[in-house]
Amino acid sequence: MERTIVIIGGDAAGMSAAAKAKRTNPECEVFVFEKGPFVSYAACGLPYLLSGAVRSHHDLLSRTVEQFEQQGVKVQTEAEVVELSPGTRSVTVKDLRGGGSYQQSFDACITATGASTIRPSLPGAGALGVFTLRSLRDALTLREHLERYRPRHATLVGGGYVSMEMAEALRQLRLEITLVEAQGQVMPSLDPPMAALVQRELARHGVRVVLDSPVRRLEVGGNGLVTGVETATEGWRTDLVLFGVGVRPNVALAEACHLPLDATGGIRTNQRMETDRPGLFAAGDCTSATHLLTGKRAYLPLGTTANKQGRVAGENAAGGSARFEGVVGSAVTKVFGLEVARTGLTERDAEELSGSVATAQITESSRARYYPGGSPLAVRLLANRATGKLIGGQVIGDEGAAKRLDVIATALHAEMTADQFARLDLCYAPPFSPVWDPLLIAASELQKDL
Amino acid sequence: MERTIVIIGGDAAGMSAAAKAKRTNPECEVFVFEKGPFVSYAACGLPYLLSGAVRSHHDLLSRTVEQFEQQGVKVQTEAEVVELSPGTRSVTVKDLRGGGSYQQSFDACITATGASTIRPSLPGAGALGVFTLRSLRDALTLREHLERYRPRHATLVGGGYVSMEMAEALRQLRLEITLVEAQGQVMPSLDPPMAALVQRELARHGVRVVLDSPVRRLEVGGNGLVTGVETATEGWRTDLVLFGVGVRPNVALAEACHLPLDATGGIRTNQRMETDRPGLFAAGDCTSATHLLTGKRAYLPLGTTANKQGRVAGENAAGGSARFEGVVGSAVTKVFGLEVARTGLTERDAEELSGSVATAQITESSRARYYPGGSPLAVRLLANRATGKLIGGQVIGDEGAAKRLDVIATALHAEMTADQFARLDLCYAPPFSPVWDPLLIAASELQKDL
Repeated sequence: MERTIVIIGGDAAGMSAAAKAKRTNPECEVFVFEKGPFVSYAACGLPYLLSGAVRSHHDLLSRTVEQFEQQGVKVQTEAEVVELSPGTRSVTVKDLRGGGSYQQSFDACITATGASTIRPSLPGAGALGVFTLRSLRDALTLREHLERYRPRHATLVGGGYVSMEMAEALRQLRLEITLVEAQGQVMPSLDPPMAALVQRELARHGVRVVLDSPVRRLEVGGNGLVTGVETATEGWRTDLVLFGVGVRPNVALAEACHLPLDATGGIRTNQRMETDRPGLFAAGDCTSATHLLTGKRAYLPLGTTANKQGRVAGENAAGGSARFEGVVGSAVTKVFGLEVARTGLTERDAEELSGSVATAQITESSRARYYPGGSPLAVRLLANRATGKLIGGQVIGDEGAAKRLDVIATALHAEMTADQFARLDLCYAPPFSPVWDPLLIAASELQKDL
Repeated sequence: MERTIVIIGGDAAGMSAAAKAKRTNPECEVFVFEKGPFVSYAACGLPYLLSGAVRSHHDLLSRTVEQFEQQGVKVQTEAEVVELSPGTRSVTVKDLRGGGSYQQSFDACITATGASTIRPSLPGAGALGVFTLRSLRDALTLREHLERYRPRHATLVGGGYVSMEMAEALRQLRLEITLVEAQGQVMPSLDPPMAALVQRELARHGVRVVLDSPVRRLEVGGNGLVTGVETATEGWRTDLVLFGVGVRPNVALAEACHLPLDATGGIRTNQRMETDRPGLFAAGDCTSATHLLTGKRAYLPLGTTANKQGRVAGENAAGGSARFEGVVGSAVTKVFGLEVARTGLTERDAEELSGSVATAQITESSRARYYPGGSPLAVRLLANRATGKLIGGQVIGDEGAAKRLDVIATALHAEMTADQFARLDLCYAPPFSPVWDPLLIAASELQKDL
């Protein structure tokens, strides 16, 4: 059956959808409209492009327009979809190069419009030298600014993933850094005792961390460049400000044609990634996902989820019947030498949800103690006292944290109890763990708190 | 309630049992009789002691006799239990230092007599320079021999874990090495395409690998030292032979008092680690474990299992009610630069058991391709075609293999299907994996074969 599929947006979700749709049904005609100049680039690599660890932005392009075209996917870059008409089953596309507009009809449409960074409306937020980092274009603009102005001090606003990764990148470029966070800890997705380990690592690498301090205003010099930051209690000079205070889903097109949103602000979909209008799908950072531990929708815009949702939307748009069940909230970042990984619920979230929470936190060596090269690994586990089931975990260390986190994530998917987790037959050899893996030691401690 | 517990054997299982019994019921009197001079040493560290990565054998002693005594555990080293009398609830202990014998009565007894290496009865197997490696004493004897005779060529007989680790250790000591294996591949616990990667790594490090070649005899020189090895088709000169052809459970004491063995040759126990005589327990390498994928008993003597079984036996001997459910067959070793990890069933085992087996094997980068320092990671997954459930996995690579294996092991415990596994929310950042983790890519391939 021939079938025309229109995909709005050519990043992780959109291009995953395009490739999967074509694989599912090679007879489909698949159009991708992307308003920017690039498709399918690795947004998570941007901090490493800026630090120089990744040499060229070409390395971040997973696949080129030409490669997709060879697969039979028709890709238009710098082509903005300005209207989505469910009634006529068509989109209106504006050619940002030529300037004209045209219609494209479809049998199925996938909205994969992604998210935009939040830029707080503070005095001075529009100054030169004030950035957000989301797109490859953002990164290239920031890099140009770094080369042209050679700033000596940068302020990172917000204590989330972008600020963590950019702290490392900008330190490698020898900038002095102040990280300022409105809340009482960095990385609010970690429990406070684990966040403290991250703060210590930042301090060890010369990053000044200012907590409990919403930024009030930015100072701007006569040349239009940002020159300082002010909170309620202090101010400091700075040459560059990067806002890393979160993103929000791009839902303007969806709202304009009355596609319902859910409580997170993302486009509402079912497990097929279909909206309430048959044939209209959405995937990636413009949607949300079911959190498998709460049963509620959660807005956790990550590349892994976008890819999975895109595949499911693409398969279904092409006539398949795939499902995306949800996430457990796994994430990891590298903060200088530390692997910082988390999954499931934090203690605060869990208490709000289910009342009584058991926790255990231990620090053990990442290798057998007698084997050279090991380092301390902190593991925190959370369980629901009523059910005994694991509900979250956090792992931080110089090595072995990220992949150990995945063991916890797998246990969360399987709804394992702390007792079951403590009995896991994990592999052991001295270069890779103590004979009791830190995960099992943490589980054994957790059993005592249950 | 006061209660006397006798533990026969002071290694992983015995000392875990002793510590746990005392924690479970501090009123217990706990006696450990160990016939060797050491307790609680890390046998898995012996290859690294020989290579020099671990400096002193003292580093391998997890805890000393004094530390156990402080916990209230009474430890006798060089004290051999020569008789176990279930009827009178006592053991006869021979003091290997003083020479006398004495009786010790008990309420509960835990047999933790471990295993012994198999030394094939070949011509020449008794020569000087022919070794097995199991105990700290074996390692110290071998080290003394290496220092005294400065052998230039070593032959490793058998392609299992000991030979893998000793190949690396002896290469670090600059010996030339031939590894000779009776079967057609090294590491029979891997499927052939994965074993081939290990063979390549051995070859890359100058180890000559001779397959399909049972050793017929060893040649011995006039001074009593081994001088050569002969198979059916070839012979070579060698200065040292190390047999790594497996171990068998030490069950003589148990057999003498008619404790039943199971089909593996290990002492038969239930999930409480209790034999068919109430109050008589067994744990560690002298017993077997239920393989959770087959439901049958399997003899997989590993430190991790010994520790877990020891704890369960100790808790129950002290009046508790713990259970050890079984293993999924997880194991890992370091072969030069490679992490080599496996869990579950091999393809051959699975076919014998359940007929039709789906497999997938992929090689992907351990990190995002654009992020520096990644290396190829081979992942092989197996599933039962009838049920769709995962039944095994093998992971080999320079980094990230061991801990990824644990994700598969966890999925095996949870009886996950390949579909469920492919949807896991694993954490992602460029330094730690591609956006689709190699595990998920392998699972996605596996789905196609189901």
